[in-house]
Amino acid sequence: VAAREVLGFLGGTGPLGRGLALRLAVAGHPVVLGSRDAERARAAATSLRATATGAGAAAAVEAEGEENRAAAARADVLFVCVPADGLRYALEQVAPAVRDDTLVISAVNALAFDGEARAVPVEGVSSAQLCARLLPQARVTAAFHTVSAPKLEDLDAQLEGDVAVCGNADDRSRVIALADAIPRLRGVHAGSLTQAGTLEALTALIIAVNRHYKRSVGMRFTNL
Amino acid sequence: VAAREVLGFLGGTGPLGRGLALRLAVAGHPVVLGSRDAERARAAATSLRATATGAGAAAAVEAEGEENRAAAARADVLFVCVPADGLRYALEQVAPAVRDDTLVISAVNALAFDGEARAVPVEGVSSAQLCARLLPQARVTAAFHTVSAPKLEDLDAQLEGDVAVCGNADDRSRVIALADAIPRLRGVHAGSLTQAGTLEALTALIIAVNRHYKRSVGMRFTNL
Repeated sequence: VAAREVLGFLGGTGPLGRGLALRLAVAGHPVVLGSRDAERARAAATSLRATATGAGAAAAVEAEGEENRAAAARADVLFVCVPADGLRYALEQVAPAVRDDTLVISAVNALAFDGEARAVPVEGVSSAQLCARLLPQARVTAAFHTVSAPKLEDLDAQLEGDVAVCGNADDRSRVIALADAIPRLRGVHAGSLTQAGTLEALTALIIAVNRHYKRSVGMRFTNL
Repeated sequence: VAAREVLGFLGGTGPLGRGLALRLAVAGHPVVLGSRDAERARAAATSLRATATGAGAAAAVEAEGEENRAAAARADVLFVCVPADGLRYALEQVAPAVRDDTLVISAVNALAFDGEARAVPVEGVSSAQLCARLLPQARVTAAFHTVSAPKLEDLDAQLEGDVAVCGNADDRSRVIALADAIPRLRGVHAGSLTQAGTLEALTALIIAVNRHYKRSVGMRFTNL
């Protein structure tokens, strides 16, 4: 992903969208936060610029806010960070605006909580596969499910862990370059989009680990 | 798990069963390798003792071979390491012999290979949940799916990685004590048995990573 490519974020005003956008804006990428509410999106972009500047990031941090569909239209790379229960609605709304061959990165975790977190496929498939179904013109990948949103949003927090990426090999390489642009994260090739459901389910497993140990754990491949 | 508890292995003559039995025998646990063929089981036990002795393990390594059902009858802790396509048959065969409250550890990965490895639920549930269904008198857990069988079998190989354990909390603690008895492995509480399918699917993801990087990777939780 060239540095001047625009990164759009559906659900860019939620914790994960804000966090990923902040880290990647600080790494030099222009970002466009999307929201159902354009005013909220603009406020989040203003806040992002203030956070980046306050942390001493280069003055060149570029962040704007737009209504989701306008953000999607501008995106060369589109992160999908909406809650799972709003996923179909958001995708249907933006689909006509998504350009051919846009790289889509689904970070959506479809989880239910019944005593503990549990992965629940959306319409029988993973969230990423639903993205592929509703955005057939795009190149859909799955990544960033297990990264801590609060740590992404705190530029002083030490991230750690691997970003497993599912999709076609060429698309995965572009996502991995983005993951590697965030300090202490590492992108890893992890198979085709049919494996995306495993990444989403892994989040539920990590929540179970967190709950037991009262920690915020990540995941890393060893011997790699 | 007290050191004198007997560890039985269904499918104890396959690579994972042999590897786990070897490591846990060296750690001081009496093991009984099970097989459909009692002669093969006894030969595997003889081989295990030779390997352990050759590697300088204490003379007290106790390993025997039995037909699966006899191994199950002797087990205080029963590892299930059979191939997924023989799982129902093996469980039905041994079920009458499994004692009440036996701790069962399912390491079965139900995978299909169509271009890449993919997790395929057995009869609609995880292999571990099928164990629970067919062995209602037992305490069923899921663990050891992602540990490398060749490395377990090679006492000189450096293992690394976490053993995520699903099941009831008390049962998980007993499994974790077994994982921790193997050098450089670490058992981790990872939720209830309903999460076991995620552990099984994770193996397919790891196979995809291995194939891409031509490595044998493991998995570890960070910040834990």
